[in-house]
Amino acid sequence: MPPLSATIQATPVPPIPAVRGWAARYQGNAPVLDLTQAVPGYAAHPDLLARLGEAAADPATTGYGPIDGDLPLREALAADTASFYRAPIEARHIAITAGCNLAFAMVMATIAGPGARIGLPTPWYFNHQMTLLMQGAVPVPIPCRADDGFIPFPKRLEKLLDGLTALVLVSPNNPTGAIYPPHVLHEIAAMCRRKNVWLVLDETYRDFLPDSASPPHSLFSEPGWEEYLIGLYSFSKAYCVPGHRVGAVVGGGALRQALMTALDSYQICPARPAQRALAWAVPALGAWRAGNRAIMAERADACRAALAQLPGWRLDAIGTYFAYVRLPERYPVAMEAAEQLATEHGFLCLPGPFFGPGQERHLRLAFANMEPARIAEIPGRVG
Amino acid sequence: MPPLSATIQATPVPPIPAVRGWAARYQGNAPVLDLTQAVPGYAAHPDLLARLGEAAADPATTGYGPIDGDLPLREALAADTASFYRAPIEARHIAITAGCNLAFAMVMATIAGPGARIGLPTPWYFNHQMTLLMQGAVPVPIPCRADDGFIPFPKRLEKLLDGLTALVLVSPNNPTGAIYPPHVLHEIAAMCRRKNVWLVLDETYRDFLPDSASPPHSLFSEPGWEEYLIGLYSFSKAYCVPGHRVGAVVGGGALRQALMTALDSYQICPARPAQRALAWAVPALGAWRAGNRAIMAERADACRAALAQLPGWRLDAIGTYFAYVRLPERYPVAMEAAEQLATEHGFLCLPGPFFGPGQERHLRLAFANMEPARIAEIPGRVG
Repeated sequence: MPPLSATIQATPVPPIPAVRGWAARYQGNAPVLDLTQAVPGYAAHPDLLARLGEAAADPATTGYGPIDGDLPLREALAADTASFYRAPIEARHIAITAGCNLAFAMVMATIAGPGARIGLPTPWYFNHQMTLLMQGAVPVPIPCRADDGFIPFPKRLEKLLDGLTALVLVSPNNPTGAIYPPHVLHEIAAMCRRKNVWLVLDETYRDFLPDSASPPHSLFSEPGWEEYLIGLYSFSKAYCVPGHRVGAVVGGGALRQALMTALDSYQICPARPAQRALAWAVPALGAWRAGNRAIMAERADACRAALAQLPGWRLDAIGTYFAYVRLPERYPVAMEAAEQLATEHGFLCLPGPFFGPGQERHLRLAFANMEPARIAEIPGRVG
Repeated sequence: MPPLSATIQATPVPPIPAVRGWAARYQGNAPVLDLTQAVPGYAAHPDLLARLGEAAADPATTGYGPIDGDLPLREALAADTASFYRAPIEARHIAITAGCNLAFAMVMATIAGPGARIGLPTPWYFNHQMTLLMQGAVPVPIPCRADDGFIPFPKRLEKLLDGLTALVLVSPNNPTGAIYPPHVLHEIAAMCRRKNVWLVLDETYRDFLPDSASPPHSLFSEPGWEEYLIGLYSFSKAYCVPGHRVGAVVGGGALRQALMTALDSYQICPARPAQRALAWAVPALGAWRAGNRAIMAERADACRAALAQLPGWRLDAIGTYFAYVRLPERYPVAMEAAEQLATEHGFLCLPGPFFGPGQERHLRLAFANMEPARIAEIPGRVG
């Protein structure tokens, strides 16, 4: 057989199927508690489902659409983004992609390429690391500390930016749930700009920020933001439609133009029925989205309460979809502990090493997909 | 601004928007004749539209699915592929992707990577070249001649395979429509196997082969095919649903396993409503698909008749969706000629240089999307 690419051989295998594979050896009677994947734990709005159905039954959506997405959705997301950040974002800044993972991959194809060094604060989102390795780029871990709430410390970051092509920040964070304060984002953004490093800001979970009264930052309002800043967005979580695969890039100028080349070759266009239905949903479901924040906050509370009953388990961070937990010293390292929890207790979560170096004592619990009553089962299952 | 990636800077811009951009300068009264894109020129089956609508309205399809596609669609395509090629293809050989362009990109991420040399017979499919350049791989042109019907000549190919990681064949071909005879495919496949070169066989247009009685080759029946052969398939043309973005990879063994890593990072899963509806359509719409071959054959005839009225235009190849035409010597080179045809006559087609070196006198006409009566307008418009 001819060899596989050196890049794919250097890329770790997908974590979620690996962990779900362990569950096959679970023999218990109680149903598996699966906290591996960031899935919205409630149904999409019924009116959105009806519109998805109408759109998909319409012959007009069977055809190719524009490479960077249908204009009504680009306009709708531009208006939503402009209002959310109080910034002059327009449709020309928005490109729709087949999911936010593809958005990240296409941005990296446009700005990074083989050999480029890309800073990822650790713990990182595993698909960011995997995509960079597959493209021949170099993920550079930027260590964050539990004592800092896993928020990068700008002063320590400054030197690490030297030689980087881009820095990727995820806020609210996956896997920790940490929310980066505006002053941290602004300080880091100013450094990136000064050092001529792209700042890629993944705000997939922005609709679940607890404080909706003020924007998480005002970077999109600053003149010339297009010269160094790129935003990533996902419709999957906010609208409960991950199976429809719709994400977006917020960017401008030369980046936005070059991105068309990447999108043309990889996606041709995003799937069209969901684009049409979401163009309606973005303005129409604002109140519903706001209401879901309360559901998520309730689940976070249930998760907090459940973990408090587990002696020695330390909740190092929690927010939006995720809890990031440090195991007591009596447990083996996270990889072994997670395998034991899966095979012996039917409790599935992702062990820290999938999220980068230095995570050997941690577990990520994606609690969003589970009702509080089931979250409350965790202590009885694991204790 | 930080620089864009060297790879994206080395990648040509998307051809179709470029040509459609020329049309903005067209001042004529007659409506534009757009023969740029390979679009099925008839509607999807009404029962498929109804099932697409039902699937998209169902909350079950809003969730994530398996990385490599839903099992019912993998099983349906495996059965269809097995019957088409009379080969023992099973669901474990099938991975569903968000379109066939992504299928190609993910296969290349898995087997090629930066620096890999990939053979593409010219004229090539422009997105293949673009994707390879973006990944830092090297597209190596394998010249095909009009005199050979643009079919690669195995004897001349043999030496060119040295040092290649993979050879990509597209049959029926885009842009020429050429159908590679079984003996040519078998001879080239044997060479690839002997020289340890991957053979990637893109058969997007296989459902439009005029002779449905015998398979186009029996490579999938040969023991050990998984060791060197990878098939690509698209649902876009056969089922008239390009806007839903569904394609597939046929592969096995270590390639199939490694492909999961690429798919997890780039697509997570393909869009799910279309997968469900297509799982029904693959067995149910066999007769309808066969009937569409006649529609395409009729359009090819109309195109042939239209071009025969244009003095000096030489039809070098025609088949399935495309005609590949050589311009008379009185015309300027293809890039200029196509721009003139667009701006002065409202006639849009892709000039040869988008399809690789040595194509300066050719135009690709994607006639599939146009009814015979409109195809018949070509001589009056262009003459």
